[in-house]
Amino acid sequence: MNEKIERIQNVLKKHELDGWIVFCHHSYDIHQRYLLEKWFSSPTLTFIPQDGKPTVITSRMEGMNVDDETFSVITYSKGSELKRLMGTLLNRFIPETKIALNYVEEEKVLSHLSYDIITSGTLKALTSINPQLKYVSAKDIIFDIRAVKTKKERENHKIAAQLAEELMENVVEPKIKSGVTEKEIAALIEYEANKRGGIAFEAIVASGANAAIPHHKAGKKKIAAEDVLLIDYGVAYEGSNSDITHTYWIGNKPTEKVLNVYEAVHQAKEAAYSKIKAGVLSEVVENAVRDTFTEYGYDPEKYFIHSTGHPLGIETHDIGIGISRGSPEVPSKSLLENSVVTVEPGLYFENEFGIRLEDDCVVTKDGSIRLSNTPKEMKCL
Amino acid sequence: MNEKIERIQNVLKKHELDGWIVFCHHSYDIHQRYLLEKWFSSPTLTFIPQDGKPTVITSRMEGMNVDDETFSVITYSKGSELKRLMGTLLNRFIPETKIALNYVEEEKVLSHLSYDIITSGTLKALTSINPQLKYVSAKDIIFDIRAVKTKKERENHKIAAQLAEELMENVVEPKIKSGVTEKEIAALIEYEANKRGGIAFEAIVASGANAAIPHHKAGKKKIAAEDVLLIDYGVAYEGSNSDITHTYWIGNKPTEKVLNVYEAVHQAKEAAYSKIKAGVLSEVVENAVRDTFTEYGYDPEKYFIHSTGHPLGIETHDIGIGISRGSPEVPSKSLLENSVVTVEPGLYFENEFGIRLEDDCVVTKDGSIRLSNTPKEMKCL
Repeated sequence: MNEKIERIQNVLKKHELDGWIVFCHHSYDIHQRYLLEKWFSSPTLTFIPQDGKPTVITSRMEGMNVDDETFSVITYSKGSELKRLMGTLLNRFIPETKIALNYVEEEKVLSHLSYDIITSGTLKALTSINPQLKYVSAKDIIFDIRAVKTKKERENHKIAAQLAEELMENVVEPKIKSGVTEKEIAALIEYEANKRGGIAFEAIVASGANAAIPHHKAGKKKIAAEDVLLIDYGVAYEGSNSDITHTYWIGNKPTEKVLNVYEAVHQAKEAAYSKIKAGVLSEVVENAVRDTFTEYGYDPEKYFIHSTGHPLGIETHDIGIGISRGSPEVPSKSLLENSVVTVEPGLYFENEFGIRLEDDCVVTKDGSIRLSNTPKEMKCL
Repeated sequence: MNEKIERIQNVLKKHELDGWIVFCHHSYDIHQRYLLEKWFSSPTLTFIPQDGKPTVITSRMEGMNVDDETFSVITYSKGSELKRLMGTLLNRFIPETKIALNYVEEEKVLSHLSYDIITSGTLKALTSINPQLKYVSAKDIIFDIRAVKTKKERENHKIAAQLAEELMENVVEPKIKSGVTEKEIAALIEYEANKRGGIAFEAIVASGANAAIPHHKAGKKKIAAEDVLLIDYGVAYEGSNSDITHTYWIGNKPTEKVLNVYEAVHQAKEAAYSKIKAGVLSEVVENAVRDTFTEYGYDPEKYFIHSTGHPLGIETHDIGIGISRGSPEVPSKSLLENSVVTVEPGLYFENEFGIRLEDDCVVTKDGSIRLSNTPKEMKCL
């Protein structure tokens, strides 16, 4: 834990910030969990100073959940006390003290939504307590803290991916057959993920035409024979997530079209891996995927309705550099050494079926280290 | 679904509002799920006009998840298009059109955090598009929509509570024994809850001294013999949650103190039920619980470190009138007919053990309808 705080304090020094405040209610701010390693349901404020011991203000009921070796813990039993305690904290700073908060300047917000976290009311309440302080957006420090993973975090990503592969092969695949509902398989995946650490996100289990909906929610539909089954799931291990998508055939012999699409998607994934390397522009990887689809006769503008990959971390869609084409507002950026990204090309045919193959990798200076390996040939169950 | 929209449109009429906009990214706003009955991970805007068909603006990838019989669906494939589509929507309104947004005025925010939902950046971005519109806090309409439950919602709460009781008795209790970890039991509960509908919240499984931490997170600790085990869990059914807490003894014979505390907590719960009725001040119920603890010799100021109950709904801690003492800022209010609340007295002895018993009920004009029934006598497993 102290290693994490030390890292943040170094980032604060680099950006010449005196401190960082994470304040939320409703568990809306992932950084609360990142810092305290648990969810808090009461309004909770964490203050990381550039130097010295951080402070946590939380409810009396949840104070016991804070690691008091790392944090000074102050608790309130009523909302009115919270306001007073926040005042005590903020009024002890000298004027012009620079504090980062998790917000984004209005004009940039729609292209940087991941950093637009603090709610409007708490931001106003907090910044009005001591108007002599200087508040700045935490955008840059959040990027520095999360976009590149520490050795420990990369190891946890590897474990999260291995646990996900193991649970799918050993426990879930043997239970998949026609007649079982999507929801039952999703519940089984989440149970097994929970036993191994935690759930990265609600599992997507999509049978047949549902697989053409990239973010389909598992429902009461029964898995059908002679059809595709798409499963997108992940395990969380010590705050690092995996995110993997398999597409299976239920039956013995996939149709010609399904086999051809599977091959196109697999080759697109390999094309991506052939380009991934620290320093390479993310759009170069994205274009390799799109070109492969075009070669196979599937217009990517029509059938590939998302991007190739996103950064992976404490959030499944994490802060960092993903794989996409960029836009005039947010141009494509270079992939970062020691970042973790997903590689997930897919082709979707509305009302028919969809195939996506998704693996995770660490970006290295020479290429990448694959953390998972969806199969080259379509697996029949 | 149309019934839900109709109800909201009636509330908009009552408050003389022209519409309600729910706009969020990261699934931060529960009203997005309430309206669309699914989670959306892309930035998504829902507009409910006072009359006529509502509109949803979401990403091309998630547009297929919107029920297009109820909503006009407009999709974007890039962030820049989202801004343009928002402009098209907002610029067609005449000046002074009154639109509710999910924010709270700064001065009230710390005592009304449940309504402080929209992030600071999106609020500014949204309200700057057409400055001639009149934005107001959605606080009052959210209260009217959520604090009192429809007949259908009350039925769903009943089912959610029954499913929770059934899964505990039939599946979980037989698996509880010393040596099993808290986490394994929590994973099993969530699996069984998922199979029956969904998880209301991350289950709390707390053995021995952990039971003295009301919001303990289930961990690797093994359940111990001759100790208490507290389990706080719930099932979500069609958007309505249950929230139940059992406290068991692992072994044959609880200690004298444990038995006495269990009885005090059970009697406190009965004292609460004897007072619950629509129109009764919530603090009357709270005081009945506190007085019972005092009678049993347990100072409630010291050992009862939370309130008696909270409103229950699409969120486990829902909008509405709960059971508490109130404060100078937020005075105690009367219980509402057809609201659903938890009744959950507890006593906590730090580093020793804790006992909480939690049931759900519908508040009626004559008293209450109990949705669950934790046992009068402590169950030994």
